[in-house]
Amino acid sequence: MPETIPVDSVGLVSPQTIHIDSPLTLDCGRVLPSYDLTYESYGELNENASNAILICHALSGDHHAAGYHSADDKKPGWWDSAIGPGKAIDSNHFYIVCINNLGSCKGSTGPTSINPETGKTYGPDFPIVTVEDWVRSQMVLADKLNIQQWAAVVGGSLGAMQAMQWAISLPDRLKHVLIIASAPKLSAQNIAFNEVARTAIKSDPNFHDGYYADHHTLPRHGLGLARMLGHITYLSDQGMKEKFGRELRNGINYGYDVEFQVESYLRYQSSNFVERFDANTYLLMTKALDYFDPAQRFNDDLVATVSKIQARSLVISFTSDWRFSPERSQEIVDALLTAGKDVSYAEIESQLGHDAFLMPIPRYIEIMSSYLQGVLEECKT
Amino acid sequence: MPETIPVDSVGLVSPQTIHIDSPLTLDCGRVLPSYDLTYESYGELNENASNAILICHALSGDHHAAGYHSADDKKPGWWDSAIGPGKAIDSNHFYIVCINNLGSCKGSTGPTSINPETGKTYGPDFPIVTVEDWVRSQMVLADKLNIQQWAAVVGGSLGAMQAMQWAISLPDRLKHVLIIASAPKLSAQNIAFNEVARTAIKSDPNFHDGYYADHHTLPRHGLGLARMLGHITYLSDQGMKEKFGRELRNGINYGYDVEFQVESYLRYQSSNFVERFDANTYLLMTKALDYFDPAQRFNDDLVATVSKIQARSLVISFTSDWRFSPERSQEIVDALLTAGKDVSYAEIESQLGHDAFLMPIPRYIEIMSSYLQGVLEECKT
Repeated sequence: MPETIPVDSVGLVSPQTIHIDSPLTLDCGRVLPSYDLTYESYGELNENASNAILICHALSGDHHAAGYHSADDKKPGWWDSAIGPGKAIDSNHFYIVCINNLGSCKGSTGPTSINPETGKTYGPDFPIVTVEDWVRSQMVLADKLNIQQWAAVVGGSLGAMQAMQWAISLPDRLKHVLIIASAPKLSAQNIAFNEVARTAIKSDPNFHDGYYADHHTLPRHGLGLARMLGHITYLSDQGMKEKFGRELRNGINYGYDVEFQVESYLRYQSSNFVERFDANTYLLMTKALDYFDPAQRFNDDLVATVSKIQARSLVISFTSDWRFSPERSQEIVDALLTAGKDVSYAEIESQLGHDAFLMPIPRYIEIMSSYLQGVLEECKT
Repeated sequence: MPETIPVDSVGLVSPQTIHIDSPLTLDCGRVLPSYDLTYESYGELNENASNAILICHALSGDHHAAGYHSADDKKPGWWDSAIGPGKAIDSNHFYIVCINNLGSCKGSTGPTSINPETGKTYGPDFPIVTVEDWVRSQMVLADKLNIQQWAAVVGGSLGAMQAMQWAISLPDRLKHVLIIASAPKLSAQNIAFNEVARTAIKSDPNFHDGYYADHHTLPRHGLGLARMLGHITYLSDQGMKEKFGRELRNGINYGYDVEFQVESYLRYQSSNFVERFDANTYLLMTKALDYFDPAQRFNDDLVATVSKIQARSLVISFTSDWRFSPERSQEIVDALLTAGKDVSYAEIESQLGHDAFLMPIPRYIEIMSSYLQGVLEECKT
């Protein structure tokens, strides 16, 4: 943390965990009899509860979207560039909630939690959850918080898929939806990358069919590989060129050790990740991505899928994002327009690839800020 | 093999191996005191040895470019669509040589060969070879075959890098160079993918620092992962969509087994590959790719690099190739043009990604065929 908290930071924040004692039936058919949901909130809920914004997180994200947990934190929450007093998602005016997804390893019930039926951690026995399951559980939290209608549901990447699913499944529970750097479903190539990541984890001899906790070990190599691969898809070719070029660390050594800067970066990113993320959770999150396909229930007709949406939509994409390219966002926009919906679309020029959605790119932040100013005006009326 | 050999096939062919007893000094500084080079040839060398074409192979390729080794072969050589009587690279008129690269595992000396100094297989002690090393060794073969000047040196992908290096290093030893689906050097993203592949191999517990042969095992998981990942980069997103879509094999099972067709395809490709390819060789080939950067010796000036080229060039790229995109080929073309060289360029419309260079795409084959007709006319004069 900086020595003094910046004026545009939400400052020191604490996550909260709420225990839900009513059962949740999941898409896979299994039932979670009870579960915990961990979330953070910034700002104050107004009297008529009309100023609440839900932030949905992406694959390896969590509920800690802004501010600091302690003075020792080196970094703020993952979307601190967008959330705070006077920022695009303004905590002076909005009550901002970010919830850790079920199946995660960061607080909400997931593979690392204790299975009440066995008294041991769930591990691989935790059921696969879907984007629809997440929306259902997030609705339970909304009810607990007495938020009948979100002013907006906002997300990037897998978070945007949750936002989109909110608008489709629970049309009267949100007024606006911000769908950033996303797609209406994964492509075969997206699924293929996920499958390589899963294979890397599952073929690590320390994976033990997911029961690595029982063996007091971790599938570090597999999870590290998955993360390295993920990172390549989060960055653009051009962005990597600017960041690393073909620079060598210490000249060519004609051996198989790390030589290029980009190799060193990927190694660092992966070794860092394996200490803070759970492999079963990674598998689960990639499956949730693969399964996301809201049009499936509508005979693959995306226009029919979005036809019941009541929220106004802002769709944002980034030029160099090749994981979920602008064309994929345009599929969503086209469907919304064809269905006669109110939608704005912005394609942001950026070299930062998919990761751009996390970055303080001026035009991006301005567009989000302006849009949410309009949302704020509505809250007041 | 089909029941009868097609009239446009080179038919049954046999590789030849030549033992070279003079030492070869490699870029890494090490010396191979002697080595084997395995190659195949199709067609007949004419009297003045002016009709010889060298085919350079790519990462996992070998010398078996066309025809069949036996009547039991299910598939012909890897570039049978382009090489044969009456085909683009016409064995009725050209003497076509394809050589297995040093460091491979298919015949020429490499990690799976016996190290004469120890009496054991080289394994990871085989020196890393570079594209320049390959060109040097290919020149040794050319001398043995009494080919003073190739009518053309032809390659795709890593093969094209060798062809380009021939034109740069030995300008008077070739009249034409065909540079297909290539780049003047790897991008940071290309290197990153290679590094993930290498990390997968090296972190396989059966890798044993490359001495898996001594342990009577193979790093199957690691090599399989590397191959799965490679395949994603060889195909285009659109091509995958057309080939697999998001089709499920047996419906969603909410588990971590293979569900989507694309997963099944990648699994098959990788399990097939680990039986026929050597992991140390795979490491070596990816390093040769990473190191390829002919402009490095010319202060990163690609125009200066190509300025001594005497060969006429044909450069070909494919629209959906994102491994080595058309822009990368255009870098080569631009440098050749700026240096005042004679160069033709064709960008072929294709959904097949990088793999397109192996496919019988009509416009591609026609362009290559027409170009080589011109080369043939020159041979006759």
